[in-house]
Amino acid sequence: MYNVNLQLLPPDELALRIAKVQHEMLAQQLDAVLLCDNANLFYLTGRVFCGFIYINVDGSIHYFVRRPSILLGDNVHHISRPDEIASLLPACSAIGLEVDTMPYSRVDRLLGLFPGATLGNASKALRAARAVKTPLEIHLMEESGIRQTAVYDKIPELYREGMTDIEFQIEIERELRLQGCLGQFRVTGPDLEIFMGNILTGENAYYQSPYDFAMGGAGMHPSLPVGANGTLIRPNMPVMVDANGNFNGYMTDMTRCYIAGTPSDIAYKALRLSNDICERIAEMAVPGARTADLYNEAVAMANAAGLGEYFMGYRHHAGFVGHGLGISINEVPVLAPRSREVLVANNAIAVEPKFVIPGTGAVGVENTYIVGETGAARRLTNANDDFGQLA
Amino acid sequence: MYNVNLQLLPPDELALRIAKVQHEMLAQQLDAVLLCDNANLFYLTGRVFCGFIYINVDGSIHYFVRRPSILLGDNVHHISRPDEIASLLPACSAIGLEVDTMPYSRVDRLLGLFPGATLGNASKALRAARAVKTPLEIHLMEESGIRQTAVYDKIPELYREGMTDIEFQIEIERELRLQGCLGQFRVTGPDLEIFMGNILTGENAYYQSPYDFAMGGAGMHPSLPVGANGTLIRPNMPVMVDANGNFNGYMTDMTRCYIAGTPSDIAYKALRLSNDICERIAEMAVPGARTADLYNEAVAMANAAGLGEYFMGYRHHAGFVGHGLGISINEVPVLAPRSREVLVANNAIAVEPKFVIPGTGAVGVENTYIVGETGAARRLTNANDDFGQLA
Repeated sequence: MYNVNLQLLPPDELALRIAKVQHEMLAQQLDAVLLCDNANLFYLTGRVFCGFIYINVDGSIHYFVRRPSILLGDNVHHISRPDEIASLLPACSAIGLEVDTMPYSRVDRLLGLFPGATLGNASKALRAARAVKTPLEIHLMEESGIRQTAVYDKIPELYREGMTDIEFQIEIERELRLQGCLGQFRVTGPDLEIFMGNILTGENAYYQSPYDFAMGGAGMHPSLPVGANGTLIRPNMPVMVDANGNFNGYMTDMTRCYIAGTPSDIAYKALRLSNDICERIAEMAVPGARTADLYNEAVAMANAAGLGEYFMGYRHHAGFVGHGLGISINEVPVLAPRSREVLVANNAIAVEPKFVIPGTGAVGVENTYIVGETGAARRLTNANDDFGQLA
Repeated sequence: MYNVNLQLLPPDELALRIAKVQHEMLAQQLDAVLLCDNANLFYLTGRVFCGFIYINVDGSIHYFVRRPSILLGDNVHHISRPDEIASLLPACSAIGLEVDTMPYSRVDRLLGLFPGATLGNASKALRAARAVKTPLEIHLMEESGIRQTAVYDKIPELYREGMTDIEFQIEIERELRLQGCLGQFRVTGPDLEIFMGNILTGENAYYQSPYDFAMGGAGMHPSLPVGANGTLIRPNMPVMVDANGNFNGYMTDMTRCYIAGTPSDIAYKALRLSNDICERIAEMAVPGARTADLYNEAVAMANAAGLGEYFMGYRHHAGFVGHGLGISINEVPVLAPRSREVLVANNAIAVEPKFVIPGTGAVGVENTYIVGETGAARRLTNANDDFGQLA
């Protein structure tokens, strides 16, 4: 056995992330935050462990580790029970805890470690900090984008005539895994459940999922009612692939369409429009842009093309056209009509203008972008954006 | 589009489950529970949806559905926002919410729908109800056990000389998926993260995971530090496979060992002992047995055989030898030294007496059992329990 340094981030990178969190703590008048959400532990150390991170508003940081015991370093304390934390920390009058992801009973127990302290929202602070990516984070998302793109460009080779959607999906999952995809699809909160992504073809696309996704699908079983449902892939029928892009703890999100044969006119038109909307939103996605305006522009383009009825679902329409992402697939900002968010440089957003068309199924693309200082947002997901031809 | 009945459970089965929950509500003096955890929604309807289930202590039940809108039936109400629930429900003085899994901010918001009500622990009530399986649940677990067993018996055919642990794992994942495994590994709570299971070989087995698992492994990346880490599978070195048994929303848990060549004497001894401990615990697992006694018996057998040092880990030992399971992989009861739980008929437990041996790696089996009315617990996972021979 050997010991290793708990902290995997370079010192400059850590300082940058702590400064972001400090900024949000000051805005919320928090004396300190105590964190234990795996995504936040990963954000602040480059690894997941079992324990807690404490950040004081003065920028000092302490790590409380339950497992694994080999993790060492400055300000690393090994504990058996959470209540051992209290004696190691100064008193505080306002403590931030992850109230939006941690179970009620845990928050209640942890709050008891800070007698007399008021409870603040550390989820909000970390959500805001994580929404603006650092250079290292952008580098990792670029890497996931390149690796996900390489797999997507190989997808046509994985198809065999007579496959169902789930059989095709299984071969895509395997190829992703062979190319280093970690498999895990990290989501924030307890509601969203998904395995490695969705493959939709034919009428299955009309089935509304319980989850807050653009597209549905009945799934293979009512315990996980989303995505492929065993539909045979038929000639001239689009197949939409939205599969896992997590190669290093940071996810990119990409959707492409494939077809054995020739798309119908409306399918072809919808795919071109989806690409055009992505391009237009990327142009508009500059610092200061309102995310609601981006959503409204996408709807306006769909309506102008006569495809508004099919935009983001048929009969049931998802109420957004894009979302922030990074360590989790569902981060902020959200590109939605009632959003009041305004883009800033280094936001990472996935844009997914998709259409569900009766008789045709699901058609559309999705791309992941980094908002720049000036000019159009930069695309990280560069697979062929036309219909991929299935042999 | 078409409408479907929300409730998938047969009326008798639903009545049985509601009666169990009512029993726990009475014990906690709750007037009602309001549930939204996906596992609990699945338990009470046979499907996952986006919404809430309300159960009054008198046994009446209401379903509040946000998505999908096609779900209909008796006492099904469609809502857009959670606060629409309040006007549809009677006042109550003690409401149970899922405080052990639902985020603090959500519990806080839902509690506001019941002015003046005290907060009770619906997680505890559902955990207790779900620990005792119904005939239909046992049937579904039997089915998962049979299908998982069929895949495990095929595992030797998936091996090719020169494979790493992760390459072997990817082929096992694909075979599981082709045989209908849903992929999802449902866990309760926000801490445990895992993909489709763990394959461990060689020194990687000594690496302690952050999660509350018997075995560790460094994993392929520090964002998901568990399981296979790219180790080459070497001749005469055991490979332990603990992979996903979710074929219908109910999981069985099974571990088997494989080897290319011949196990060392100590590896062979440890595997026989692991099987013997499983058999002994199954004999002891009768209604009224204390789970702590089962744990202690396993430790005593490991010590008597001179393998205590390696039992449930080397240097770091997991503090349990088995766990309840069903819809989630981590249910009650837990077979642990400080547990005060007592078995009852129709508990489902996974028993995993495993060893980590320097120079050898991880060795052991795991089986899933149903506690009977009398006699030994019944095993649901029946793959060959000797070393599977890799070609």
